Amino acid sequence: MHQLGVPVKSSGFALTVVGKNHSYCMPYEFTAAVLTISDSSSRGEREDISGPAVAKSLEEAQFSVVAKGLVPDEESSIEQALIVFATKAQLIVTTGGTGVAPRDVTPEATLSVCSRVLPGVAEKMRYEGAKKTSLAALSRGICGVRGRSLILNLPGSPGGAVDSLAAVIDLLPHALRLLSGDTRH
Amino acid sequence: MHQLGVPVKSSGFALTVVGKNHSYCMPYEFTAAVLTISDSSSRGEREDISGPAVAKSLEEAQFSVVAKGLVPDEESSIEQALIVFATKAQLIVTTGGTGVAPRDVTPEATLSVCSRVLPGVAEKMRYEGAKKTSLAALSRGICGVRGRSLILNLPGSPGGAVDSLAAVIDLLPHALRLLSGDTRH
Amino acid sequence: MHQLGVPVKSSGFALTVVGKNHSYCMPYEFTAAVLTISDSSSRGEREDISGPAVAKSLEEAQFSVVAKGLVPDEESSIEQALIVFATKAQLIVTTGGTGVAPRDVTPEATLSVCSRVLPGVAEKMRYEGAKKTSLAALSRGICGVRGRSLILNLPGSPGGAVDSLAAVIDLLPHALRLLSGDTRH
Repeated sequence: MHQLGVPVKSSGFALTVVGKNHSYCMPYEFTAAVLTISDSSSRGEREDISGPAVAKSLEEAQFSVVAKGLVPDEESSIEQALIVFATKAQLIVTTGGTGVAPRDVTPEATLSVCSRVLPGVAEKMRYEGAKKTSLAALSRGICGVRGRSLILNLPGSPGGAVDSLAAVIDLLPHALRLLSGDTRH
Repeated sequence: MHQLGVPVKSSGFALTVVGKNHSYCMPYEFTAAVLTISDSSSRGEREDISGPAVAKSLEEAQFSVVAKGLVPDEESSIEQALIVFATKAQLIVTTGGTGVAPRDVTPEATLSVCSRVLPGVAEKMRYEGAKKTSLAALSRGICGVRGRSLILNLPGSPGGAVDSLAAVIDLLPHALRLLSGDTRH
Repeated sequence: MHQLGVPVKSSGFALTVVGKNHSYCMPYEFTAAVLTISDSSSRGEREDISGPAVAKSLEEAQFSVVAKGLVPDEESSIEQALIVFATKAQLIVTTGGTGVAPRDVTPEATLSVCSRVLPGVAEKMRYEGAKKTSLAALSRGICGVRGRSLILNLPGSPGGAVDSLAAVIDLLPHALRLLSGDTRH
């Protein structure tokens, strides 16, 4: 049902649903999308390192990354991208905009498009992150549910994003199975 | 003030305020109610094991269980039951509906009837639960205040419910004393 | 820009912006305000010990305390004081009203004047507090952002307030620098 390779039409931000050469052979259980949220990257001033790093981690964990996007730190752009991606993928992972700076609004945008939150997932990311740096407590990322999709906010730094994802990735398959209606457990 | 033994009249769900033979002799400091939230149990397809197990734990901790109920995973039914139970008991403990499945809406129903939340109580349940299973992080249960009553969401599995209650039961008497207006501390 | 020594005009509560003799020499990087929230202290029935203790901790951590206030446990009074203080100081620290008693409404008042919250800061206060007393889990204090200011809720007891502040004070300079628009990190 995913329109692989077809660019998503939208105003104000660039999203691409990526076609995979091996899409005819799909060993992956779950689909994922990666959304980078960064003013400087969306202006082309800074290369997006975190998005590809997160996508690589997801592929290694057997997720099929079917969409990637890049938007500035604007609440409406983030919301619009999340709404589109939630129709394309079961897991949407964002990187960036989770801090305390005035333009860090990713958690608020995420909350506004989710019907339910999983506070324990964000807690776990901060708890594990605190083993490396006490500043992990300042990360405001959340994990929420939109429809049958899960949205997970990661920090913007490549290291922080990859480590935060690693802290909770073992929980995601179980959550996604429950969300998809498979309640055997 | 509790109308012991009088069935609560309501539409859409079954609640019973239980009469206790020894209600004339009340060594208990606090009253409690147990609400099981389960589609399959409310359809009679599965025996409710968790509700009685939670009630037993409460009795052992010297709570007087004055009401029990069983409702399906419907937000309005849960809210209605919590509103009634908060007039009957100082502590209302729910079991079920705290997970990620599409019909798990107990935390949302609880939040909607509470004026204040105690995030640290839910944190502690997850923190202790994580010592047994990393999936404890997916439990979305909250603890909130409605009037002078405390509402606590436990998971639906008998083991998860009993363990989560055990993780925080020592906190409850202090909270209930403060709620009742006893602020000596 | 802070009107040092000029009492703030407002109805319903007493706030003082304190003038400092050495205000011509400002080695402090950040300004702070302390708001005590207590019915009994605002009625003059109990000396406010926690406010001065928190102010002392802040001075020792190189914050310049430019305002102090005392309000009863009334949501509107707390909100009004926080709104005024957020125009005077970069960090506003409250003490009191974070518990479970019916009149403990500091977190709700704080949330209502903040645009964003930092859940990890409150988590860390409870996590560190739990090493001393399991009752730390009952503290409902939050940390939030209003404009370019940070608001932090501490418990009302002098020991609890000072310990909770100590648990997170190392995080605050980084958060305040980000909030002020300094995003080098």
